[in-house]
Amino acid sequence: MSEKKLKEIGEFKIIKKIRKMAKKGKGVEVGIGDDAAVLDFKGKKLLATSDMLVEGVHFSSSAEPGDLGWKALAVSLSDIASMGGKPLFSLLSLSLPPYIEEEWIEQFLRGWKALAEMFSVSLVGGDISQAEKIAIDSIVLGEVEIPILRRGARVGDKIFITGFVGDSAAGLWCLQRQIEFPSLTRKHLRPLPRVKEGQWIGKSKAVHSMIDISDGLAGDLGHICEESERGAVIFAEKLPLSSDLLSLCRAFSLSPLEFALFGGEDYELLLTADADISKELGFPLYEIGEVIEDKEMILIEKGEKKRIERRGFEHFKEIW
Amino acid sequence: MSEKKLKEIGEFKIIKKIRKMAKKGKGVEVGIGDDAAVLDFKGKKLLATSDMLVEGVHFSSSAEPGDLGWKALAVSLSDIASMGGKPLFSLLSLSLPPYIEEEWIEQFLRGWKALAEMFSVSLVGGDISQAEKIAIDSIVLGEVEIPILRRGARVGDKIFITGFVGDSAAGLWCLQRQIEFPSLTRKHLRPLPRVKEGQWIGKSKAVHSMIDISDGLAGDLGHICEESERGAVIFAEKLPLSSDLLSLCRAFSLSPLEFALFGGEDYELLLTADADISKELGFPLYEIGEVIEDKEMILIEKGEKKRIERRGFEHFKEIW
Repeated sequence: MSEKKLKEIGEFKIIKKIRKMAKKGKGVEVGIGDDAAVLDFKGKKLLATSDMLVEGVHFSSSAEPGDLGWKALAVSLSDIASMGGKPLFSLLSLSLPPYIEEEWIEQFLRGWKALAEMFSVSLVGGDISQAEKIAIDSIVLGEVEIPILRRGARVGDKIFITGFVGDSAAGLWCLQRQIEFPSLTRKHLRPLPRVKEGQWIGKSKAVHSMIDISDGLAGDLGHICEESERGAVIFAEKLPLSSDLLSLCRAFSLSPLEFALFGGEDYELLLTADADISKELGFPLYEIGEVIEDKEMILIEKGEKKRIERRGFEHFKEIW
Repeated sequence: MSEKKLKEIGEFKIIKKIRKMAKKGKGVEVGIGDDAAVLDFKGKKLLATSDMLVEGVHFSSSAEPGDLGWKALAVSLSDIASMGGKPLFSLLSLSLPPYIEEEWIEQFLRGWKALAEMFSVSLVGGDISQAEKIAIDSIVLGEVEIPILRRGARVGDKIFITGFVGDSAAGLWCLQRQIEFPSLTRKHLRPLPRVKEGQWIGKSKAVHSMIDISDGLAGDLGHICEESERGAVIFAEKLPLSSDLLSLCRAFSLSPLEFALFGGEDYELLLTADADISKELGFPLYEIGEVIEDKEMILIEKGEKKRIERRGFEHFKEIW
């Protein structure tokens, strides 16, 4: 019998344990281990995902309720997007301290609704309970015809990303130091999930695997590599970095690459596909690398090869 | 702008507020305000429910993890049962303190699985996060052909219940006082949701409304009355009370009626139906009263009429 505590084990090992125990039942096309479950419901493919946000872990007690409502939904919409799916319905389970005011709930729902209306998602249920600290579980159900999984990457696939990486983590860095930088902090507080882009990418025959960037580029690319039993080469110079990120890093002598690779919560989509996929699509994709046979992740920076650590945000492991 | 705090407002008024704000979207047949949402998914009826259990609110820090795993699922299965539905898939969002041991997770999952296997429910996803206290959000998805709602009660309907009421609250009473009474405490810790019975009742043309008893008989009958815009008469002498409950109440000079009406978490089904429904079914139903026109709830005890308070467990309101 193991006596190990969660802080020694880490989030991903626990998920592996649960995944092993939850043997694949009837109708479960994809269970634990991807961004959303793919379920057979009367012959059609149903997507389901849930994401828990906890006060003091995912957000501070001073967070604006409107931002929280937005972000709680954004995180789950992004999971549906990364499967190439369309979100339909949402449930919200809330644990709230008794001192919370009615106005807080109203602002929270307004933030939630502002994003929900963009993608015609309906709030259909949930639960509300008392607690000492705020916890929000956001559940989204969606539909998909052909789900794009983490495990489809092929040797020779090009690796693409839908937008800038590192901005959200840089925004958090500013928030923690009370540095005013609205264009970055907004990326952290109100990320815009790539819902439409995910559906367009999902319709392409050229795409082979996809994930959203929640744990950080290195961590999430690692998930694709692990599930696909492949490796990856990333070109540092090709990473799309915003001028905001670059100017913050210049001002404070920080490494933009550090934010881009190991910062999380950008909610961009990371995919592997045939080289010509971007020609089919009506929006830009940034090519940042290539899938390789060897199960390792390599960064090429100024012509030099470096191994990329599988570092990124992981619950129960203090990384930040 | 209202400055009221949650503890002054209470759970049900907040839910009403959210329900008003969440206008009914496309495909939402039944949204917030019943035991589970009824959703149109590609022409078929999908059920979805989520229930949050929080340490220090729904269970004590000394609770057995196996009991928690069982109960988290039981509560959500009961919601599906009360719609006349069949549960299919489950997701679990867990927030756990870092000091939790691996063994805790294993026992939690074993408790969950013991109940899940009874009804062939698969664990298909979820989330895991760090937190100061344990919180569990249990999500269950199911299917139904004709959902039985809270709002269908008709004047003249008989009111039925599937089993004993008050045992779970009496079990909690014993647990809080460290009184050994396993047959009662087990009812509180490992309630058996009426999943099969719910489906059988749901197939009968005689049933008009249904709910599960989670907040207490008075509270949940109140939900049916409110949604159906009707009232009810309950006969105290007809309430099914277990010999365990009666003997505990005799020993400690307690009122069994108090437990039966205002205790919660029995997870029996409460329904209103034509008088002859029980003839169709292969299990006993206890007839306990009748639906009336006047929007009030009346208890008849030893020939005397009393108004039943809408008391029961409500979050943010200290009732117990």
